[in-house]
Parts: sequence; structure tokens; C-alpha cells
Amino acid sequence: MSDAATAPEPGADSPQPSRRSVLGWGGAGLALGAAAAGGAALALDGGARTAPVAEAGAAVPFHGKHQAGIATAVQDRLHFAAFDVKTEDREALIQLLKDWTEAAALMTQGHPVGEGAFGGLAEAPPDDTGEALGLKPSRLTLTVGFGPSLFDGRFGLKDRRPEALVDLPKFPGDNLDPARGGGDLCVQACADDPQVAVHAIRNLARIGFGKVAIRWSQLGFGKTSSTTPEAQTPRNMMGFKDGTRNIAGTDTANLTKHVWVGAKDGPDWMVGGSYLVARRIRMNIETWDRTSLKEQEDIFGRTKGEGAPYGKKREHDEPNLKAMPEVAHVRLAHPDTNGGAMMLRRGYSFTDGTDGLGRLDAGLFFLAYQRDVRDAFIPVQLQLARRDVLNEYIQHVGSAVFAIPPGVRGDDDWWGSALFSGSGKA
Amino acid sequence: MSDAATAPEPGADSPQPSRRSVLGWGGAGLALGAAAAGGAALALDGGARTAPVAEAGAAVPFHGKHQAGIATAVQDRLHFAAFDVKTEDREALIQLLKDWTEAAALMTQGHPVGEGAFGGLAEAPPDDTGEALGLKPSRLTLTVGFGPSLFDGRFGLKDRRPEALVDLPKFPGDNLDPARGGGDLCVQACADDPQVAVHAIRNLARIGFGKVAIRWSQLGFGKTSSTTPEAQTPRNMMGFKDGTRNIAGTDTANLTKHVWVGAKDGPDWMVGGSYLVARRIRMNIETWDRTSLKEQEDIFGRTKGEGAPYGKKREHDEPNLKAMPEVAHVRLAHPDTNGGAMMLRRGYSFTDGTDGLGRLDAGLFFLAYQRDVRDAFIPVQLQLARRDVLNEYIQHVGSAVFAIPPGVRGDDDWWGSALFSGSGKA
Ligand code: HEM
Ligand code: HEM
Repeated sequence: MSDAATAPEPGADSPQPSRRSVLGWGGAGLALGAAAAGGAALALDGGARTAPVAEAGAAVPFHGKHQAGIATAVQDRLHFAAFDVKTEDREALIQLLKDWTEAAALMTQGHPVGEGAFGGLAEAPPDDTGEALGLKPSRLTLTVGFGPSLFDGRFGLKDRRPEALVDLPKFPGDNLDPARGGGDLCVQACADDPQVAVHAIRNLARIGFGKVAIRWSQLGFGKTSSTTPEAQTPRNMMGFKDGTRNIAGTDTANLTKHVWVGAKDGPDWMVGGSYLVARRIRMNIETWDRTSLKEQEDIFGRTKGEGAPYGKKREHDEPNLKAMPEVAHVRLAHPDTNGGAMMLRRGYSFTDGTDGLGRLDAGLFFLAYQRDVRDAFIPVQLQLARRDVLNEYIQHVGSAVFAIPPGVRGDDDWWGSALFSGSGKA
Repeated sequence: MSDAATAPEPGADSPQPSRRSVLGWGGAGLALGAAAAGGAALALDGGARTAPVAEAGAAVPFHGKHQAGIATAVQDRLHFAAFDVKTEDREALIQLLKDWTEAAALMTQGHPVGEGAFGGLAEAPPDDTGEALGLKPSRLTLTVGFGPSLFDGRFGLKDRRPEALVDLPKFPGDNLDPARGGGDLCVQACADDPQVAVHAIRNLARIGFGKVAIRWSQLGFGKTSSTTPEAQTPRNMMGFKDGTRNIAGTDTANLTKHVWVGAKDGPDWMVGGSYLVARRIRMNIETWDRTSLKEQEDIFGRTKGEGAPYGKKREHDEPNLKAMPEVAHVRLAHPDTNGGAMMLRRGYSFTDGTDGLGRLDAGLFFLAYQRDVRDAFIPVQLQLARRDVLNEYIQHVGSAVFAIPPGVRGDDDWWGSALFSGSGKA
């Protein structure tokens, strides 16, 4: 390596002024930085994240009453990761959550972590891994969650486990791979640029090195839901519009009723939060692709082209359940069949190579937010698992449930602050 | 299913006029269709595909002297699939290639396959799976290749195997998984929208049902190369700009010299084609992320921020190899160290979940096109495999090589027509 002696100081080559001087991130604060990074921050709607579609490159505010990434208009791409906590030290876990919060506040606004990818000491590993440099904020949101196993006693949280954070029952037809389920913590990264989402998860994993390990992760290449009824409804891998009937990010009434944990629901630390169910659902797409159009439409109770409910003309017409087969997916999943149960769906399509049998390993990574899984996902999925004709073409292969704490209120607050404050060592 | 009786004729709901009448694809031909689908077709440059960056939503012409997807400006996303041919019937394989060509000509221009997803008979499976409906052409290119095993005698092609289509040697450090390598056929789908790329591969697989099976496939979420020097160079998962020095899609001299098979090279059926090497290269990103900035820069011989070669100021300055460590990646891979060898790199970053040990299974899916692998990839990779300091952080885990036939000349031509014409049953 003798030639290295002639090399210039790494990171000090003259055409590259320091990160601070270029972008003014030092003293001028985040607002300036976000503008410099090419993103226009969204205005907060009374602290709630009910802002509709932002420009693809823009930044979504990190702070607020609720975490971003739930009512936020659905971004195009997903990287989701579940983590096992490896430390048994409560303080170390708290410090990790603080460090994650700080990094998330930066990354969602389009900034690198810490001193960036090449702004620190040449002798030290960079604070940021660098691959998102020059990319726009891309509406990145980072949403953190706590799995049931976090409350097992290791961290003095046994008595803080929300009653609503139940272990999901085994549903008929479940074929779950434990390696694709569970987790003490989760982070949902959504962005319009996948490199931005992957970068965020990777840097959080890096920050957590030695304290957490990634248990499983999932890339989603295309959204299969919409929280913005005015936008074009995306199509899932079965070719059907998905997300037609969903809770809109602007529908405060339904968000309050079906998504956000209310003051009376408790526990206190969850007020303003929600519960997330994640299910990896594999599709037998080869079988599906050989099914007739009529059969496909009967299965959903909607037409494939327009997406109109049977007996109606337009996609957004109110479904007439009686016009659908009794076992049609939409009929069985509809609130009227489920005592009014609703959830906010926010899933993504996935394709993870092949299954070794010549078939694509593809499907839908189902994500749904709700105020209480016992009144929403569980009864609806029981109904579907028992009767849905769609079951012939799908299989649930991964499952997890997480308590999603409320939003981070400001620079001094951090993910889970209310959970850890005041609780002793169990 | 008695309720189904009240349902309207599926696929015949009134708000959805037939595909033909909406888009005029019936008689008016492809040009109109492409415009209707929101894409502006690129002009062909004398039949060669040397067109620079097109708008993100546009269509890239399918027909030409060379296949699109090589010199074509690199699109953002990739879905790559290798197939095993399951039939032993030469005529069935030829028919498949004709059917694939026809479908590819449609899909690359933003059209669905055949009658589309809901334009055919309700009693039959739709011709197109539908999930790309409403999406733009997104610069989709589909590039087909023939692996060494296709020439094993099953299809009477034994004497048609190009000399240059050698089996790659085992390189030092290779840790290849046979399930991620080889293949009789390959299709590289590149597009700016991943759903468009996934849709294309999935529909080709569907068309080939019973004749071919997917052997392995790879999703690439971010490009790690550039064939358009004027555009911003993307960064790979190590945070470095990748593709700074590459053969540009407009550099006819180097394309002729290093990428396209010439008339004198033979065989005749390959003239205008190229050879593709695909390597799945896993990165130990956790180790990389704990390496100092200086070490990282020494490994490449370039700065991380600007991407300037050691001893120079700007990314695109000519590298001074002597200013780099002797074992720096760029020094070892540079044409001057390899008797002038060059290739056109067109790789993508991947993240495929976790490896079961708490780490992301991420890296670079390396794709390189060249006139002869014996003069390009093989000697360069031998050099790298033996000496490159980068090897401490990467591992080659998948490998394949394919002969990429020339372009499809027009509506009557098809992928591989010259390969199959005139050759007997071996
Ligand atoms: C691969 C699996 C699934 C596919 C392909 C799928 C597809 C669809 C489609 C095409 C629609 C109609 C469009 C719309 O209103 O959004 C729909 C509606 C719906 N689905 Fe699913 N779905 C799947 C799994 C699930 C699961 C697991 C649940 C919950 C347990 C669920 C709950 C719902 C609900 C609540 C609706 C709206 C019903 C209404 O209000 O009309 N889906 N789904
Ligand atoms: C994970 C594996 C790899 C990484 C991260 C990587 C990264 C890079 C980077 C950052 C550069 C400098 C920027 C540029 O000029 O494009 C570069 C250049 C280059 N790499 Fe790699 N590379 C990898 C594997 C390979 C392999 C397997 C080959 C071929 C066998 C290769 C051939 C080249 C060539 C030919 C150049 C340009 C050298 C020059 O002309 O200056 N790379 N690579």
C-alpha cells in the first residue's frame, strides 16, 4: 500500500466543501436544510398528520401528535424491518430509541445522519452510510412499533403492555414461518424512492449495532392501497385495484373512531398511537393467472377494469353486498359484515425471487393500522380465513403485531418516551 | 353462490369501454397506443439504441439493430429472471420466443399483452395480468439472452454455440449458490417503475407456462451505474458513486470496440449482439459500516463525497492510477491495468430481506455487457479476485453468463430468429 502515501487527505479533496457549509445544516436548522435538499415540508394540520398527497420529492414532517406513515398519503415504496433487542440493559434500549429518533428526524427531512457520509474524521467510520446522498427526501416516513415480546420482563415493561396488544390467534389456513414473524421492535420506512427507504433502515440497524439485530425485513416495490381517494388507486399483483375503500388520511372522523388510540382506551402512553398488523401473504400467481376473468371478478365482487362493485358502475360507488357472491372478498371484509369494523390498510406488493419450484415468490405484504386489533383485524381475518374464496390463491406465511406509540412531539421528545417514563424495573 | 346471479356480466360493466375503443390499439397501430399510454417514443438513431436519457415515463423503441436495455440510458429499477426450458421440443421453444417477442413489443410500448386484462372472454383467463394497467411505459426495456446450457444438444443448437460463450471459471473467493446461477434463458427487465418491470417478467413467465420455469430472479431497487455521463452518478450500497467511468450509451466508438459483437467475431447470428455476465455480489455491509472513511476511500482509490480519483479534484477527472494504492479497486479494474479491457456495467443494488444472522442480505447485482467475456470480464475479475482489497467486504454468491442476440428488426422478426434459422436437429 506504499502508493497510498501520495494520496490526498481522504474526505478533504478541495472540490468538496464540508457538508455544513454546503447545505447550512449547522445552525440554520432543519427548515433551511429541507429546502436545500429539494423538499418542501408539509404544513402540519393542527399537529395531526392528515396532510394529503405531497410532491414526490418533498419532506413529510417528523414531529406531531401521531407518527407519520399511518395517515400520511401512501408512498410508492416500502422497506419494513423487525428487530430483536439483544441487550438486556434498559438504559441501553432507551438510549437506542433516543438515537433512532434523532436519526429519523434528520433522515425524514432529507439529511444524512450525524456528520454525514464524509464530513467526520477520516480515521472514523462515517456517521452516515452515504447511499442516499443527493437523493430527495422522497416523502420518507419512519414509523416505530413495539412487539408483544418487548413486554416480557427484560426491560421492566411487563405491567405496561397494552391489553389491546394481544398475540394474534392462529387463523385457519395460516402457514406461518417464524423467521418471517414477530419482533421486539419494528420500523416501517416508506418513501417514493426505494433507495431512501433502504438507506433509512440500514442506518437505523447500523446505529443499533450490538443492541439490536434485524429479525426479518421486507421490501415492497409497489403500494397496494391508497389513503388519498382523489389519487389513482394502485393495482395489486392480482391486477385488481386495491385500496378503493379505505380510511382516507383526511377522514378525521374515521381516523379517530378506527385508527387512533383514544384517551379512554388507554394505556396513557399509547394515546394518539395505533396498532399495526403485518402479514406476509404469498399469492399463487401461476394458478391465479390461469383463472377466468369471471371467476377472478366473482372472488372480489368487483370488476377488474373499472374496479366497480358488482351491480354498480363506478369504482367509488357504494358496494351493494347482496349483488356479490356470499363468499366474495369484499363482501366478507366489508364493515357491514363485521359489525362496523374498519382498519386503515397500507400494504405493498412484493417479489422476492423464486421459490425453488420455478415460481415467483410474490404477493402482498399486508399492513393495517387500527385502534384495537380485537375489534378489527382479528374478527375480519377470522371471517376471511374461514370463508373467503380468495384463500384458494393466497397463503399467509408471515405475521406480526406491534403497538405503535404516538408521535414525537419535538426535539426533546423521543420514540417511546411515555412508555419508559415512570415505569420501574419489573 | 346464488347471489352471483344478480351480478352484471363481468368485464362488461358499462363505464368500461373495450380496450380497443379506448386506446385505439386495434387498427391504428402502436404509435397511437404509445401516445395514449402517456409515453413519447424515442427516435431511433440509425437503428442503433444509443438514445440518451428519455423522460421517465416515456417508451424506448423495441425494434432495432441491437436489443434495447444495453446502451439504453440506465433505468431506475430492475427485475431480472433466468429460466430453465422444460420442453424438449425445438418448435415449442421457437414458438415461445415468438410469443415473447410479440408480448415484449407490446409491453415496452406501454400496452398490455394480447387482449389485455379484461378485454377478452369472461370465461377465459385474461391475456394480461393487469397490474401495470394505467402505469406509463416507464422506459421499460426487455433484453433476452441464451445461456450455455441452451446449446447442450436438446434443441439442435450444439454447433451454434458461440466460442465466446464460455463457462466462467471458478474465481478465487467465489462462494456460488447454484440456485442463484445459470439458466437456459434470461430476461433483463429495466424500467423506472418497478411494477412495470415485475409485470413484464411475470407475464413472460405466464406465457411460457409449461415450457419454461423461473430458475432464479433478482429485483434491483437502485441502479449502480450510469451510461449517461451528463446525469448524476448513482451511489451503491457502500455509499460510493458507481458508474463514473463506464461506456456511455452514446459512445459509438467504444460500443463498437467493446460491447457489440462484430461481423468478424462471429458467429453470424450474434453479430450486433453482446455477452452478459451477471454476478450476485453480497456485501458485508455491517463490517463496511464500521470501516473508517480513509480505509473506505483507499479501497476504491476515490473520495467518497465527490467521487474524485486520488490525486485529482473532480469526479470525471482522468484517474491517476499511481496516486492510488496498488490494490485499490479502481486501479485494478482500470483498462490500463488490463490490457485495455472494457465493459459496459449496468448493475443494480439489491436488498433481499435478512440472512438469518441479524444482517441485511444486501449488495450489488453486477451486470456487464461486452463483446467477448474472455477479453473483458474474465481477466478483469481474475485480477480483482486475486488482489482487490474490496474482497474483504464482498462475496460473489451467484453467477451466470448469457449470449445476448442482436435486436429484433421489425414486426416479422423475433428473438433468436437467426440462431434457429438454418440450424438442424443436432
Ligand atoms: C393477498 C391478500 C388480499 C388481497 C389480494 C386483497 C384485495 C382486496 C381488493 C382488490 C379489495 C377491493 C378494493 C378495495 O376496496 O380496496 C379489497 C378490499 C378489502 N380488503 Fe382485502 N385483500 C387481501 C387481504 C385482506 C386481508 C388479510 C384483510 C383484513 C383482514 C383485508 C381487508 C379488506 C377490507 C377491509 C376491504 C374493504 C372492504 C370494503 O369496505 O368494501 N384484505 N381487498
Ligand atoms: C460489490 C462489488 C463492486 C463494487 C461495490 C464496485 C464499485 C466500484 C466503484 C465505486 C467504482 C468507481 C466509480 C466508477 O468508475 O464507476 C468502480 C469502478 C469500476 N469497477 Fe467496480 N465494483 C464492484 C465490482 C466490480 C466487478 C466484479 C468488476 C468487473 C469484474 C468491476 C469493474 C469495474 C470497472 C471496470 C470500473 C472502472 C475502472 C476505471 O475505468 O476507472 N467492479 N467499481
